[in-house]
Amino acid sequence: MSRPGEDALIARYFAPLAGPGGLGLADDAALLAPPPGCDLVLTTDALVAGIHFFPDDPPRTIGIKALGVNLSDLAAKGAEPVGYLLTLALPGDWTEPWLAAFCDGLGEAGRRAGCELLGGDTVRTSGPLTLSITALGRVPTGRMVRRTSAAPGQRICVTGTIGDAGLGLALLGGSRPGWADALPSDQAAFLVDRYRCPQPRSRLAVALRDHAAAALDVSDGFAGDLAKMLRVSRVGGLVDLDRIPLSAAARTVVAAAPGLFDGLLAAGDDYEILCTVGPDRVDALSRAAAAAGIAFAVVGDTRPEHGLAFRRRGADYAMAPRSFSHF
Amino acid sequence: MSRPGEDALIARYFAPLAGPGGLGLADDAALLAPPPGCDLVLTTDALVAGIHFFPDDPPRTIGIKALGVNLSDLAAKGAEPVGYLLTLALPGDWTEPWLAAFCDGLGEAGRRAGCELLGGDTVRTSGPLTLSITALGRVPTGRMVRRTSAAPGQRICVTGTIGDAGLGLALLGGSRPGWADALPSDQAAFLVDRYRCPQPRSRLAVALRDHAAAALDVSDGFAGDLAKMLRVSRVGGLVDLDRIPLSAAARTVVAAAPGLFDGLLAAGDDYEILCTVGPDRVDALSRAAAAAGIAFAVVGDTRPEHGLAFRRRGADYAMAPRSFSHF
Repeated sequence: MSRPGEDALIARYFAPLAGPGGLGLADDAALLAPPPGCDLVLTTDALVAGIHFFPDDPPRTIGIKALGVNLSDLAAKGAEPVGYLLTLALPGDWTEPWLAAFCDGLGEAGRRAGCELLGGDTVRTSGPLTLSITALGRVPTGRMVRRTSAAPGQRICVTGTIGDAGLGLALLGGSRPGWADALPSDQAAFLVDRYRCPQPRSRLAVALRDHAAAALDVSDGFAGDLAKMLRVSRVGGLVDLDRIPLSAAARTVVAAAPGLFDGLLAAGDDYEILCTVGPDRVDALSRAAAAAGIAFAVVGDTRPEHGLAFRRRGADYAMAPRSFSHF
Repeated sequence: MSRPGEDALIARYFAPLAGPGGLGLADDAALLAPPPGCDLVLTTDALVAGIHFFPDDPPRTIGIKALGVNLSDLAAKGAEPVGYLLTLALPGDWTEPWLAAFCDGLGEAGRRAGCELLGGDTVRTSGPLTLSITALGRVPTGRMVRRTSAAPGQRICVTGTIGDAGLGLALLGGSRPGWADALPSDQAAFLVDRYRCPQPRSRLAVALRDHAAAALDVSDGFAGDLAKMLRVSRVGGLVDLDRIPLSAAARTVVAAAPGLFDGLLAAGDDYEILCTVGPDRVDALSRAAAAAGIAFAVVGDTRPEHGLAFRRRGADYAMAPRSFSHF
């Protein structure tokens, strides 16, 4: 079978994703005129087939996820997307329809966020399909939202719902979980979509830098990521687990298998924003989230005593904060 | 065997490579205050074990090469390095000594070029070790050297020597080439080093943007890369093959196996700068190269007639310009 070389791939699939900074991908490098008065925020994530997604996931959703996880990082930093670079290591059995659909997904996620392809590199691999994206965003000078700047007396807030992607992953895994029987098919499809297609909260970026004290995106589990943000900020926190926002599908699962509740807080791939917010700023951030159509919940408070504690149904709740590790 | 998690890896191996923009690698993202009056130049390259380097290459040289190929791209664009991001997909059998030596190589290449680690991501892979680097450089606004801007009546120039890395690759390959017997061991070691440790011509970057009309770095073979630069610039060129700079080791090989000469011009991994220069600027660029300790040769001329032609020993020379493809 004859397949196009790298130059043909660039012209056919990647150039349509490129903006002016990509120079039509006709040069060796991309050119970026930094927006005046701005800092650049940079993030990079690698995804490996069989580890970060299933090799038989629809290629469109792999493209959406690859860019989405990077856009989620930018959103958490209060940064508006500028562009991205992609490296793609393709195994010997790649096909043009696969690549076309993957690029459709990239393009869809990029258009939604106003984030264009600036450059890239395509290579062969003897292993699984591996891709790496570096995304660039911008914030007004000095305004990046850190994860090290939480302080006592702030509210702990989170967007969207927690634990859905972990349940979606379980549904796609080798052995069908017992609770799957309790799920209506539309809820099962919702959970799988939450795993495959993260929804970066780009539309909340500006409000986050206006109102949040500290933020990160939840990629390795709510409990572990919150514990990390508090630790690097040298504060502690108390979370009311009754306030953790769960989707209807996750509530169905927890009703069928109550022991799974803790697992939702440790599951990876949420790609929601977790932030601390001064009490006088919570209403403004909450209103901005509502205006952007993004669910927003206050789930706890920071406090001077180090460590992360939980309450549930009015009582202390012992949960070892576990964390999903992509590595 | 107990091995460190990602947080421990970052603290132990990667944080020492990071500059202030990396925020100690303690945040989710890197922060870059763009230098005033500058454009940013961005390039990205992926390297896969068994494709772009040998799995048993010394890990220090893998680090040197991974950053070097990106720094070479920046140099060709006239850009001074600013920083880089790294994603690393490690197979199950990685070891800490391997990673320590790899980071030594990265650090060595980075220090030499003034280029610091800004951020990264470490993941597992079931396949070969795979890494991807995105490097950022800077040029005064509007001054990036393009590869599309060659024009008729310019000199075609190249740094260093051509074809060494391809010979080094042949020496490392499965079957010992016949010409290897003709090589003194120091020349063999030189060729292997040229394959494993590209020397990005970063010190020529400023002079290139002052004097070169168009440039790229030779990564896929001199003949193919020159043909590409001329094609995208819509000009042609004539190269005098007697002027192609060859190392002493390459001359030894060609003396033993004259048929290999064409292959030197198609071999990959040279990571030298190929540029076109107006006749009135050649002396200045040549002097700048001499001052930087970089060999510099004028090997031909651009001309209006499209296509790339060669002369050798005073006569037309038919060589199908072949190109090494990393993909």
